[in-house]
Amino acid sequence: MGRMLALAGYPLDMRFRFFDPAPDAPAGQIAEHVAGRYNDFAALESFARGVDTITYEFENVPVEAARFLDERVRVFPPPAALSVSQDRLAEKNAFKAQGIPTAPYEAVDTWEGLLEAIERMGLPTVLKTRRMGYDGKGQVVLRSMEDAKGALESLGRQPLILEGFVPFSRELSIISVRDRDGKTAFYPLVENHHREGILRLSLAPAPNLSADLQAEAEGYASKMLESLQYVGVLAIELFEVEGRLLANEMAPRVHNSGHWTIEGAETSQFENHLRAITGLPLGSTAPVGCSAMINIIGEMPEPAKVLAVPGAHLHLYGKAPRRGRKLGHITLRANEVQTLRANMKVLGVSRTTDALCDK
Amino acid sequence: MGRMLALAGYPLDMRFRFFDPAPDAPAGQIAEHVAGRYNDFAALESFARGVDTITYEFENVPVEAARFLDERVRVFPPPAALSVSQDRLAEKNAFKAQGIPTAPYEAVDTWEGLLEAIERMGLPTVLKTRRMGYDGKGQVVLRSMEDAKGALESLGRQPLILEGFVPFSRELSIISVRDRDGKTAFYPLVENHHREGILRLSLAPAPNLSADLQAEAEGYASKMLESLQYVGVLAIELFEVEGRLLANEMAPRVHNSGHWTIEGAETSQFENHLRAITGLPLGSTAPVGCSAMINIIGEMPEPAKVLAVPGAHLHLYGKAPRRGRKLGHITLRANEVQTLRANMKVLGVSRTTDALCDK
Repeated sequence: MGRMLALAGYPLDMRFRFFDPAPDAPAGQIAEHVAGRYNDFAALESFARGVDTITYEFENVPVEAARFLDERVRVFPPPAALSVSQDRLAEKNAFKAQGIPTAPYEAVDTWEGLLEAIERMGLPTVLKTRRMGYDGKGQVVLRSMEDAKGALESLGRQPLILEGFVPFSRELSIISVRDRDGKTAFYPLVENHHREGILRLSLAPAPNLSADLQAEAEGYASKMLESLQYVGVLAIELFEVEGRLLANEMAPRVHNSGHWTIEGAETSQFENHLRAITGLPLGSTAPVGCSAMINIIGEMPEPAKVLAVPGAHLHLYGKAPRRGRKLGHITLRANEVQTLRANMKVLGVSRTTDALCDK
Repeated sequence: MGRMLALAGYPLDMRFRFFDPAPDAPAGQIAEHVAGRYNDFAALESFARGVDTITYEFENVPVEAARFLDERVRVFPPPAALSVSQDRLAEKNAFKAQGIPTAPYEAVDTWEGLLEAIERMGLPTVLKTRRMGYDGKGQVVLRSMEDAKGALESLGRQPLILEGFVPFSRELSIISVRDRDGKTAFYPLVENHHREGILRLSLAPAPNLSADLQAEAEGYASKMLESLQYVGVLAIELFEVEGRLLANEMAPRVHNSGHWTIEGAETSQFENHLRAITGLPLGSTAPVGCSAMINIIGEMPEPAKVLAVPGAHLHLYGKAPRRGRKLGHITLRANEVQTLRANMKVLGVSRTTDALCDK
């Protein structure tokens, strides 16, 4: 994602320097790259020298590193947001404090605690690690008390959270952005489809998106942006349950479910993030036609086949193929929903909905 | 323009190396840069080593350099196209050979020759150097015989061409592209407005664009693409005279009047040029709404003011300001012509036409 930030910033005459522990970080192919550990404060110090603004696009950056940098150079989004997002319990509490509904949840640290929580919440439930979970890792669905025992063992001795299983009709997300003057903007809600815990497909704008649902999502995002005195792009993942929204989690960064904005919106999430953190005015978040974003996971498609599909935009991240790894994405964009649907079929994406992108 | 090519190619996982005599070439900010003279064949040789495909985005690259490289690595567009475009006489002859109408023209090398040509062609006419003219340099309008004497002296002892003055109603251009399999695609005609010989504003698609006019332009572009066995983007500048087109000149490269395609078309001219020369299928050239491209010349606008205009996209080239220098461009894009017109006014672009972008 650092690459996509840089590609959005170069036309604005911005320069980029990346800090990434991996010596072969893809961002290094197109910008200056400092390889260092997040706890190497000397490396962080020299990285920060001569830089105007620092941001991050990975929510497991240690908060200590972000705070250390923030004492030297402005870091946006604020490290406090990073801290909240790294702990599922703090995150849910932050939603709750703003009156934003979530699934029921409880912190769980022991077997006894787990039993009591299950008693209160009923089954099924989901047991998750409070920290370092992503792409479906660090979580187990509990359908029986036997599942519970196994889950506690497999997740290990670490702080956990038990979340009520929500009978949601679909998963949505909202990409929001707040600038340094406190102005905000919101992209239309996106419908997300996961498999094996990994985002596979986003439809934007979300099919059958009502003004009420959009307003509800924007209201929740506004509260989080304000309460965190946030600057930059904030993504919130939501469940739709009987026409209402529950907040699931947030990501204090540009987000995979916002990649469609490169072609599918007037201003991309990457450009708006950069505008926000550098003190420039936000750009229009209006969609341009409708889009389907398809992640490329594990193995590379034949580029010529993808590019032969009208309205297909290929984004490769410069990573070596590996099972389960996000190697890139394809955004299909069209002015008409019929065209989009036809092109999704050509690409072998079978999911279609009746009212995709219709307004 | 090299920068914009690289920015279009990175998402396709392409890597770039630039050859530019200027040690501070803007492309060097975002890619590997080899500084060398075009006649330094050792530098060209080492530049070409390890590269798959070579292209150019400046038509005054010496043809010898292009041919030297072409013996080592595929160079697209073919150096023959470069050669034709560098000589206004060869260019006009190439149009003529394909049955493409142009203004009347004659090669002129002496005072006597000039007098005879003026006698045949009448006044006013335009006297131009055959080589190295760009942005209105190297040409003089002749309204009287006195002008003629002065023009011949000021343009100096070099091959010249006298062109009949065409009472055109407007200047248009067509951006075309041909891939390695011979498939072609065409963007809609663009209306161009120059001042002091420099392109200031392009409107895309051209206002009041009829299917007939578009077909005429595509026919001419096709003939040039075929006859030159062209690969890549070719721009042809045209005059509209009483509803018909005359070819004025061609540029064997991505073109300033195609910059609007970054936001205003499904696939940008930069990406289509790269797709063409690397053997990938061409992308859709359909416009997305309507666009106005405004060049930033000589001095830099306040970025925050530009970006505050909805649908404004700022592209800075990383160049130091200098009188008459193209420092960047702004593309205004909108779904509706009314919106575009309103936003042009906000940006201080007074030129409006009644039917801008209407289909």
